Amino acid sequence: MNDEKFMARAIELAQEGRGFTSPNPVVGAVVVKDDKVISEAYHEKFGELHAEALALKKAGPAARDATLYVTLEPCSHQGKTPPCTEAIIQAGIQKVFIGTRDPNPLVNGKGVTQLLEAGLDVFTGLLETECLELNRGFFKHIRSKRPWVTLKLALSTDGYIADSQGKSQWITGQEAREFVHQQRKQYDAIMVGVGTAMKDDPSLLPKDTSGYIPNRIIIDEALTIPYRLKVVNDDYRNKTIVVASSHEKEKKREELQKRKLKVVQTEADDFGWVNLDKALEQLAKEGITSIYCEGGGQLAGSLVQAGLVDELQIFIAPKILGEGIFGFSGFMKTLDKAIQLEWDEPRKLGPDILLIGRLK
Amino acid sequence: MNDEKFMARAIELAQEGRGFTSPNPVVGAVVVKDDKVISEAYHEKFGELHAEALALKKAGPAARDATLYVTLEPCSHQGKTPPCTEAIIQAGIQKVFIGTRDPNPLVNGKGVTQLLEAGLDVFTGLLETECLELNRGFFKHIRSKRPWVTLKLALSTDGYIADSQGKSQWITGQEAREFVHQQRKQYDAIMVGVGTAMKDDPSLLPKDTSGYIPNRIIIDEALTIPYRLKVVNDDYRNKTIVVASSHEKEKKREELQKRKLKVVQTEADDFGWVNLDKALEQLAKEGITSIYCEGGGQLAGSLVQAGLVDELQIFIAPKILGEGIFGFSGFMKTLDKAIQLEWDEPRKLGPDILLIGRLK
Repeated sequence: MNDEKFMARAIELAQEGRGFTSPNPVVGAVVVKDDKVISEAYHEKFGELHAEALALKKAGPAARDATLYVTLEPCSHQGKTPPCTEAIIQAGIQKVFIGTRDPNPLVNGKGVTQLLEAGLDVFTGLLETECLELNRGFFKHIRSKRPWVTLKLALSTDGYIADSQGKSQWITGQEAREFVHQQRKQYDAIMVGVGTAMKDDPSLLPKDTSGYIPNRIIIDEALTIPYRLKVVNDDYRNKTIVVASSHEKEKKREELQKRKLKVVQTEADDFGWVNLDKALEQLAKEGITSIYCEGGGQLAGSLVQAGLVDELQIFIAPKILGEGIFGFSGFMKTLDKAIQLEWDEPRKLGPDILLIGRLK
Repeated sequence: MNDEKFMARAIELAQEGRGFTSPNPVVGAVVVKDDKVISEAYHEKFGELHAEALALKKAGPAARDATLYVTLEPCSHQGKTPPCTEAIIQAGIQKVFIGTRDPNPLVNGKGVTQLLEAGLDVFTGLLETECLELNRGFFKHIRSKRPWVTLKLALSTDGYIADSQGKSQWITGQEAREFVHQQRKQYDAIMVGVGTAMKDDPSLLPKDTSGYIPNRIIIDEALTIPYRLKVVNDDYRNKTIVVASSHEKEKKREELQKRKLKVVQTEADDFGWVNLDKALEQLAKEGITSIYCEGGGQLAGSLVQAGLVDELQIFIAPKILGEGIFGFSGFMKTLDKAIQLEWDEPRKLGPDILLIGRLK
């Protein structure tokens, strides 16, 4: 019971680093002696000390014979910082609880082995589900060289993301919008199609801009993004990435880059749209481990059809429009070939219903 | 606590009569002495003894000085059966707990008054919400001369009731279909539009046909229903009501009537469809107090737009179709004029999500 409590605290600490560590994972660590926490830390920023190294540094000589709780397997290789296994052994730690192994082939299992060989007691898999969840972007990034993609859509009860005039603000209520603002801080980037960018001119920023600001990704095959948009003009425009598949428009590309935006050139698919799988691969190379996609219908349709969505967040608003803009465009399936999903337990968020699920 | 327990039992008993009492309400009654049930009964069938009269008959002389729990205010007028208040007073009942007053102007409050005047202790409103819920069709029927209408639709996550080929079997899973079969037994009639009747040729029967069989209502403005359909041909065709607004087609009407179907002639609305409000009024006169509408999109759209839906049951299936048949057809609202709903807590039923709510 106490072991779980200390690991839960380490998970809580890890969350503090959210947004600042990518493409590294978020990690939390707690040093405990005689059932008392003597120090705690989290990985604060990419390139800086790892959580366990920082916690040990804070503990100083008190760490001797103590127990370490760390959400992710300690690294065993020299990276931007020295190997954490060394720091643990040198600090005289006696027992190590690890949330989950590191899928990074440079580490996977090696960290555990080094600690065992040095005579420490090592327990792996404490609150493993929670520790995997904590870094699902990082894990997917390492394993598939693609970012984790969550697709969020707010639909009317009859399935529309906007009314027939294109108006979508606000389909959902205050609570759902708050939830989305909280979510934005959990991802390396927020993504929309250029159609949505043009129609709504969203800033795609979290409400509170005092902390971490995610990247903004605009999928814009033909590089038609207007200069007037917020994502092109605001103070955070250096965090805007435009993904294009057209290799023309040299001048537009240069102009965007001059304005500090990043332009990622990728391949087109058979229909002339951006090849989203390739685009995700390139975005992963840019260090993006997780994406929160907020539509529109064309991009949502393409993503689910290509099987590129890891999580769906669908808000069902208590409204019926009769007609409007489709939530998932660009394809047509018969019932026996429908795209299959699976839902978790649903819940109410204010007047709206939140469905969280995944492709099956 | 015990009072609630006995009333809850009376509610449970009342449910046994479901389907057989309309346009009367379902009613349950329990006679209790020294904290022990000495008899119980429910209103079994329209025209037969009321629940409390039957319970007292069963109890016989033992009812003297006992307490009666009854879900609905006892009647005080001579109807098909003698007034229940008289039976209660003559049986020597001392105390009466009543779930809710009877909205029927022939009874409302008069039953309670008679019992009080006879010197009995009377408590009204025990588990009132549950007792109102028990007879929501009856209450609506009495108050508004219209049946209670529940609209059930099974939608794909993107809002379609069928794929683009019109196929809708089965959008939802086994559990949702079981739920619908259970629901069918709770209503006086199951209703669909003629389009759905033609496309799916549904029997609209509960799975288990050994007990109560609800009426089947087909909204069929131009009386185009084909003779080949199950609802026209099966053993229960005398429980099929076709609602038409066309006053032509005398021969078709006669032919249907010859086959034992009922044809209700009503008015057309401005667009030539059945005027649904008028239709409901006429169906109420036929003794229909509650309707379970199962689509299609045109009828669903017309009902919600006209504000004629008392409860919505929307299943969200874990499927995306991209294109298909709309769940709510025939109108187009801007976001600020959308039809507003309100949802209860959602729940999962097998792989599907069940949303229960109402128009706001």
